[in-house]
Amino acid sequence: MLRRLKEILIGSPLETESLHDQRLTKKSALAILASDNLSSSAYATEEILLALTAGVAIGVAVPLYYSVPIGLAIGLLTLIVVISYGQTLHAYPTGGGAYTVAKENLGITAALIAGACLLIDYVLTVAVSVAAGIAAVTSAVPALFEYRIHLCLFAVGVILLANLRGVRESAAVFAGPVYIFIFSAFLLIIVGLVRYLMEGAPPASQADIPSPSPAWNAAIVFLVLRAFASGCAALTGIEAVAQGVRVFQPPVARNASIVLYTLAGLLASLFLGITVLAYLYGVVPHPDAKETVVSQLARTVFDTGPLYYLVQAATTAILILAANTSFTGFPRLASVMAQDRFLPRQLANMGDRLVYSNGILLLSLLAAALIVLFNAQVHSLIPLYMVGVFTAFTLSQAGMVAHWRKVRVPEGAWKIGVNAFGAIATGLVLVVVAVVKFTHGAWLIVAAIPLVVVACRAVRQHYYMTVRELSLADYEKPKEIRHTAIIPVAGMNKMVLAAVEYARSISRDVIAVTVNLDYEDREKLLEEWQSRVPDVPLVILESPYRAIHRPLLRFIDEVETWRGDDMVTVVIPEFVTASWWHHFLHNQTTLFLKAALLFKPRIIVTSVPYHMQR
Amino acid sequence: MLRRLKEILIGSPLETESLHDQRLTKKSALAILASDNLSSSAYATEEILLALTAGVAIGVAVPLYYSVPIGLAIGLLTLIVVISYGQTLHAYPTGGGAYTVAKENLGITAALIAGACLLIDYVLTVAVSVAAGIAAVTSAVPALFEYRIHLCLFAVGVILLANLRGVRESAAVFAGPVYIFIFSAFLLIIVGLVRYLMEGAPPASQADIPSPSPAWNAAIVFLVLRAFASGCAALTGIEAVAQGVRVFQPPVARNASIVLYTLAGLLASLFLGITVLAYLYGVVPHPDAKETVVSQLARTVFDTGPLYYLVQAATTAILILAANTSFTGFPRLASVMAQDRFLPRQLANMGDRLVYSNGILLLSLLAAALIVLFNAQVHSLIPLYMVGVFTAFTLSQAGMVAHWRKVRVPEGAWKIGVNAFGAIATGLVLVVVAVVKFTHGAWLIVAAIPLVVVACRAVRQHYYMTVRELSLADYEKPKEIRHTAIIPVAGMNKMVLAAVEYARSISRDVIAVTVNLDYEDREKLLEEWQSRVPDVPLVILESPYRAIHRPLLRFIDEVETWRGDDMVTVVIPEFVTASWWHHFLHNQTTLFLKAALLFKPRIIVTSVPYHMQR
Repeated sequence: MLRRLKEILIGSPLETESLHDQRLTKKSALAILASDNLSSSAYATEEILLALTAGVAIGVAVPLYYSVPIGLAIGLLTLIVVISYGQTLHAYPTGGGAYTVAKENLGITAALIAGACLLIDYVLTVAVSVAAGIAAVTSAVPALFEYRIHLCLFAVGVILLANLRGVRESAAVFAGPVYIFIFSAFLLIIVGLVRYLMEGAPPASQADIPSPSPAWNAAIVFLVLRAFASGCAALTGIEAVAQGVRVFQPPVARNASIVLYTLAGLLASLFLGITVLAYLYGVVPHPDAKETVVSQLARTVFDTGPLYYLVQAATTAILILAANTSFTGFPRLASVMAQDRFLPRQLANMGDRLVYSNGILLLSLLAAALIVLFNAQVHSLIPLYMVGVFTAFTLSQAGMVAHWRKVRVPEGAWKIGVNAFGAIATGLVLVVVAVVKFTHGAWLIVAAIPLVVVACRAVRQHYYMTVRELSLADYEKPKEIRHTAIIPVAGMNKMVLAAVEYARSISRDVIAVTVNLDYEDREKLLEEWQSRVPDVPLVILESPYRAIHRPLLRFIDEVETWRGDDMVTVVIPEFVTASWWHHFLHNQTTLFLKAALLFKPRIIVTSVPYHMQR
Repeated sequence: MLRRLKEILIGSPLETESLHDQRLTKKSALAILASDNLSSSAYATEEILLALTAGVAIGVAVPLYYSVPIGLAIGLLTLIVVISYGQTLHAYPTGGGAYTVAKENLGITAALIAGACLLIDYVLTVAVSVAAGIAAVTSAVPALFEYRIHLCLFAVGVILLANLRGVRESAAVFAGPVYIFIFSAFLLIIVGLVRYLMEGAPPASQADIPSPSPAWNAAIVFLVLRAFASGCAALTGIEAVAQGVRVFQPPVARNASIVLYTLAGLLASLFLGITVLAYLYGVVPHPDAKETVVSQLARTVFDTGPLYYLVQAATTAILILAANTSFTGFPRLASVMAQDRFLPRQLANMGDRLVYSNGILLLSLLAAALIVLFNAQVHSLIPLYMVGVFTAFTLSQAGMVAHWRKVRVPEGAWKIGVNAFGAIATGLVLVVVAVVKFTHGAWLIVAAIPLVVVACRAVRQHYYMTVRELSLADYEKPKEIRHTAIIPVAGMNKMVLAAVEYARSISRDVIAVTVNLDYEDREKLLEEWQSRVPDVPLVILESPYRAIHRPLLRFIDEVETWRGDDMVTVVIPEFVTASWWHHFLHNQTTLFLKAALLFKPRIIVTSVPYHMQR
């Protein structure tokens, strides 16, 4: 029945042979990779404004127009990162994720740090994107706000099922929402700018803007840095292009770079456009986070009409697609790390439908847990996001510097310079992010990364020890095995006799043992036993405390010690009922006994099942 | 570690020999049996008033002084039931619960109905008593009201632990709270009456009393009957004396009757006294059930001083003790019914501490579930209570009628008359209760009783079939068993070789089988296998869908069919890791395989564990 349910939800198994790589044109690749990149423009501006306005509560007012230069700085950073990554694409045309680049150039520890960061970030991409996508929905339909966690979990569930079925990321499906989002976002920016130039700022908004404080001081610097760090959320998703490079048609590196530059350009324009527009219209984040900044902007520019709903729907769609991209990246990276023996091997294998089902399930569970823990609030999740992203950036760029020093190509010095500049820039941002966001949750990730690294090493160590211990290098063939078979019985019946017959067939030395409980008629059992199986001794154990397992286990231990180097096989008569509920009507003695015996060395457990007819 | 925790909470096991019956004097027995009987006076009056005032909402006003004649009618009913039960005590001096009496005189179905009612009522006694006890606490300390469910669950937990430790019901412990309750309740009634006679009714109370409507009509009759039915909650607990009769010193029946009459007299006086007092002081139930009627009365009579808190504390104490009595009754009845094979046999056995631990756990779980489901509100639980109580009364009395017709004693006609009158009276009340409370929740019990009866019969049927099927009457000794041993392997290592050696020692016909997954190096394995164990064939199964279990199970089935009447033993190399978390780093293939093989007849499963050193 469970298998039927699985088949309906997930579909029937697929043959291994039907697995083949597909190569994408630039246009299709753009559609598939865009969601992760561009979707961050839906929340990056809001994060900057939240950081800037946070000072009001403690009496520090930062002028809101600071958001524009901060946005420009982030645009510049995007440019640096993209140029630096462009070089990675050329050097690793088969896929140059931070884990691979760090492993090949910086060693295991750096690779594990990068791997840990990327795994954490995939989980956060799902959590943040889904939460932001649902925030777009609840901004449009405020009545749904209180059900936002349920909606998020439902969305994760749908993405999970789709991925367990093994959706191929098809450009046909992705292109629609992506292009509609790009179109509607640019429409919003252009119409917004035109209306502002023609009509001026809406009067209501002026009240919300705190009056600028004239002097710079430490508090303002801190807030501005925090706003910058928050806005860096826009950069998440650049890594995905480097990771997914092998899906491009040849010339791979060139096509991938073009897509990367295009995406960076689109992202920078969207993000800056929304930031400028938010400033011009005096939009500040909603105090209860009940309406997103983009939604407020769209409502102001378009009024609450069809165009407004188009913006919200497109935003939700692209964010859900962004969450979906992690469902390819996370299981694939986990599988690579599991094949390197750093993660449990269950993550290495493909499931029925040619996808890494265990990785997909793990990702969903972790993301769902984060959503519930953080109340589906984007703003609470963002600080966790940045540390991982910038650690991966920095390690990847630093790895490229080491790479160029090793391979010695023409223009090597230039390439080293570009990547070194990238590494330094992202490294500085990493320090800023870790410091200014530390108390907001970044400490969690700063603490989690070394734990993941240690765990990965321990996993590898265990697999290494297992292989060594099971190795046949020092194997000596044992002399012939002699058995003693012990049969624990509760009475005399067909089930017991079947076990006795079986035990006699595998050993010449069979002992039956029973525990004498107060209600048991001891004499009658002995008599019946001797008339039926006189050649098998029956040992009767006393149990003053009415325990069954402890006396049995002690007896089995004693026999094992007493027989020296023989093996002891415990033959357990087992009762298999015809219908499931009958099972609960019998004492679960055998189950516990089998579990306890598993942990005793030199004891072999044999179940002789007796199948009830009804 | 779990065993240590269990020992701290529950205590070390007790020897069977230390089990012995204790016999109680009348005074001690009164203390022990009183809590269940008398505690109902804490909520019975409130239930009558709630039923009477319920009409106000629909425009039907019943005069509140009706509560007094209703109380008198319930007192009369108590007298009838007690006299009728008095005869049972003489006829069944070893314990005459409704289940026993019905089984001996009315047959299995009647006994099962009575048993089902009693089991349900034990659960409800716990739920109602604990809820009412906590209501007395939250009446005194209103701030605790919103935590009432937590408090109830905590109380159930404490009673559970105490009973798992095996508290003997000691008169020394019970006497204190019981006598303090009797004393404080009578003090409340007497001081209340004296103050009323000297000072008259308090002025504030008059406003609450609805003006009496002059004419009788159907609605009023219905409400009065419902009030009567609600007040019958006072009668719960009489059955306990008949059930527990064997704890009395001889002459058992005489001593038990005296205690029964004394308790009935005390109960009737307390209940009537509180009912009259509530009328005189115009106390009506608190609209949000935030303060009990008894608490309101005590506050009015004593003001909120030490005497008030004494009443509340004594009420809570006696109600918790009343809940505790079910923890003796329920497991004992469940054990009797399990020994008759009507309930799972796990309920028949005594645990470590000489108490029926499984029954105690089951009772706590069910009571806790009821408390949570019904929000710890006494008023919502009461309608569920009555149907079971009066069904058990009626069956018990009817059984006694049959008993007297059978045994033919002097004054037989008189005894038949008494019990028949009791049966008819309680039967009529049963009909009234079931009808007027049907929509309030009684339907649940009316539906549950036949379900329990059917389930009990199905359980007995299963045990009967099991005994017949396992019986040795038609046993034929099998001819000598020949084995085929199958070893599922994933590679070649020490663990596998250990399993091969074992398989060779139990069978001359050993086959190894492996599933060829795409990443497996098939040729290398075959070569290694042939060099190590050339005499054991290795079968390699293809698995285009990457499944491991299905091809293995199919192969085992094929071998079983092909070998005709031989037995097939599946020898499974099993991996036992040194530390618990290592366990999760290995595929759980063996676990699933063992579970699936258990359901295949003629297949025997042997685990050959390999214990990792670290």
